[in-house]
Amino acid sequence: MDIKEYMQDLGQRARAASRIISKAESGKKNLALLKIAEAIENNQATLISENQRDLDVSRQNNLDSASLDRLTLSPKTIQAMIDGLKQVAALPDPVGEITDLCYRPSGIQVGQMRVPLGVIGIIYESRPNVTVDAAALCLKSGNACILRGGSEALYSNQAIAACITQGLIAADLPEDTVQCVATSDRAAVGELITMKEYVDIIVPRGGKSLIERISNDATIPVIKHLDGICHVYIDDSADINKAVAIADNAKTHRYGVCNAMETLLVAEGIAPKVLPLLAKIYLDKGVELRGCIKTCSFIPQCSRAFEEDWRTEYLAPILSIRIVKDIDEAMEHIHQYSSAHTDAIVTENYILARRFLREVDSSSVMVNASTRFADGFEYGLGAEIGISTDKLHARGPVGLKGLTSLKFIVLGDGHIRQ
Amino acid sequence: MDIKEYMQDLGQRARAASRIISKAESGKKNLALLKIAEAIENNQATLISENQRDLDVSRQNNLDSASLDRLTLSPKTIQAMIDGLKQVAALPDPVGEITDLCYRPSGIQVGQMRVPLGVIGIIYESRPNVTVDAAALCLKSGNACILRGGSEALYSNQAIAACITQGLIAADLPEDTVQCVATSDRAAVGELITMKEYVDIIVPRGGKSLIERISNDATIPVIKHLDGICHVYIDDSADINKAVAIADNAKTHRYGVCNAMETLLVAEGIAPKVLPLLAKIYLDKGVELRGCIKTCSFIPQCSRAFEEDWRTEYLAPILSIRIVKDIDEAMEHIHQYSSAHTDAIVTENYILARRFLREVDSSSVMVNASTRFADGFEYGLGAEIGISTDKLHARGPVGLKGLTSLKFIVLGDGHIRQ
Repeated sequence: MDIKEYMQDLGQRARAASRIISKAESGKKNLALLKIAEAIENNQATLISENQRDLDVSRQNNLDSASLDRLTLSPKTIQAMIDGLKQVAALPDPVGEITDLCYRPSGIQVGQMRVPLGVIGIIYESRPNVTVDAAALCLKSGNACILRGGSEALYSNQAIAACITQGLIAADLPEDTVQCVATSDRAAVGELITMKEYVDIIVPRGGKSLIERISNDATIPVIKHLDGICHVYIDDSADINKAVAIADNAKTHRYGVCNAMETLLVAEGIAPKVLPLLAKIYLDKGVELRGCIKTCSFIPQCSRAFEEDWRTEYLAPILSIRIVKDIDEAMEHIHQYSSAHTDAIVTENYILARRFLREVDSSSVMVNASTRFADGFEYGLGAEIGISTDKLHARGPVGLKGLTSLKFIVLGDGHIRQ
Repeated sequence: MDIKEYMQDLGQRARAASRIISKAESGKKNLALLKIAEAIENNQATLISENQRDLDVSRQNNLDSASLDRLTLSPKTIQAMIDGLKQVAALPDPVGEITDLCYRPSGIQVGQMRVPLGVIGIIYESRPNVTVDAAALCLKSGNACILRGGSEALYSNQAIAACITQGLIAADLPEDTVQCVATSDRAAVGELITMKEYVDIIVPRGGKSLIERISNDATIPVIKHLDGICHVYIDDSADINKAVAIADNAKTHRYGVCNAMETLLVAEGIAPKVLPLLAKIYLDKGVELRGCIKTCSFIPQCSRAFEEDWRTEYLAPILSIRIVKDIDEAMEHIHQYSSAHTDAIVTENYILARRFLREVDSSSVMVNASTRFADGFEYGLGAEIGISTDKLHARGPVGLKGLTSLKFIVLGDGHIRQ
């Protein structure tokens, strides 16, 4: 198979399908989502046996256990896929929504209508559930998509793709609306991210190295996030109980997620009170602590943090801690080291809360709340395709709206420009 | 002067200034705009004499008369600059606006706050008034900017830049908020569009070849529009008087603008009635007509249009005309040939109006209005930095909001994730 030809063909089909799905009725799109859920339910045995083939190959290739975990389909993960499809079906249709329609002095009415982006290319690692999640979000937002999952999940993804096709056909929608790349040849990715004429946007999901490689090579715009170096700053004016609860939750609720706190900043006035309380909690939970000199003076078990620590997304039970003079020094640290994902302040002071919200330039900025809330479901987006740390187009958790654009509409009654 | 070093220095200064301007109070930004207007008023004689130096050089270099026209500063164009600055000062500040703030089931409040993009690079041809317009929009939206005008306008732009600096200083804002590139070396553009660490977005303004070159070479996202191949479709259900008024206005109001109609599509049922009326108007105004075979049968003075005509933005008193069967054939033509800038339908039929609005995928879609309305002022944006035919980030006329992004804000009272 010639990969270039194969990918170009997928692109052409996706472009053709996108014209139809972009104007499909909400009811039809929802029907397709529910029919896909039905197909997955009915084909559970096949999904699990195809997944077994992937697992067998991956075990032979000595895939690490965390990756094997993510690759595995169980009745539980399959049920989660089915629930996810039903949830997306229940969300309001973003396409065609008209906002800000108002009369202008000339007599015309001007507003904006939400429209799909067109064709979305999604590149991800070996998590077969992403195939269903991504397909559901693209379909609901009126986009066609080309999905390229990790090669380790090839059989699983093809089995899922068959269910998606069944659902699309049952709802009388073009089956090319969702296409899975049926080859593990890496050249397919290179084609996908440079087929400007067929693909409007690329969404890579996975580890930092995958995302970095794709953003460097893509000639198509990419919605991405690279790092989640999130901060919590505890100001002198913080309520101690809230500060402890938030700093605990932000670090220890889950370690391997992008919205976990990696660096704790503490104002020097409150440090003697709050750090011993927090140190006990962290050490009891087995969190390794690395701090500045002053921090180490309060926590004997704390080792010294180096410059490199402030720049590291641990994704692990490790926390770096720095004592700062005040909110200005805290915001300066955040400006220098934050990955602009999510940063929070704990304070009871109105003026400082207002300043932090305005001055910290991150995709999510929080007052008195755990960074763990930075999430499409928690924000009420219904679902998310990822979290963007870019500023253009979509910033923060990207839901259905992030997969759409706005066109202007003008309504007149024979109006001409004077 | 080492161009790379020089541009990197501009970039660093812009980045530093952007941190301050991003959080500057609205009052200060407005004061700066009014002080710039004052400085321009007070330095009118200098502006005109510096502009004269540019004109002298350009005449020696045999610059064409249209370009000389655009390059010339007169008391009238200077007054327009002053008025523009006052208008932008009077617009509401987009920065810091909080929208959609609401309580989530978890108890947190989630909303979005509008924030500046950071540093904007603007590249344009020899129109010195763009220097003021672009600076005003960037300043008001809390962005720093680096302006690179055409080399023919170097002296004029430096004189304008001096006024801008005066205004910024008078308002106690960093003078590096607006920097004009003080060299006509073309290598400066190459640097500007690849300084990812200092520049967040590039806005090229000018002819198609400039914009194409910049989009191809830039490694920074570009807000652009390439073509304005705009259509008016007159359906069988149109009111003849409205159809004639709109098709006349869309073509002949101004010829050299991107929102002028380039192709007229007419449903075959109404063609015998509407085409003779329109032909008389166009021919009286000296518009050359090029049509399909059927069109030529109604208009003897019409020459044959070729495939190439459907793809051409004439920007001149030339119009191509095609007779189509119905709205479907019209939308198919638009899908194939439109540059997705602005397309309009003339109809009294509710169903067709609704379909056209939903199904035509252009940055502006109109019903019973002239394409000439596609403009930031007409839409109520107050001012525009350009019209985007891209789908990502900003689509259609780009005003202050297009130069901003949205971050999520979360307000809590010690909330943690369960």
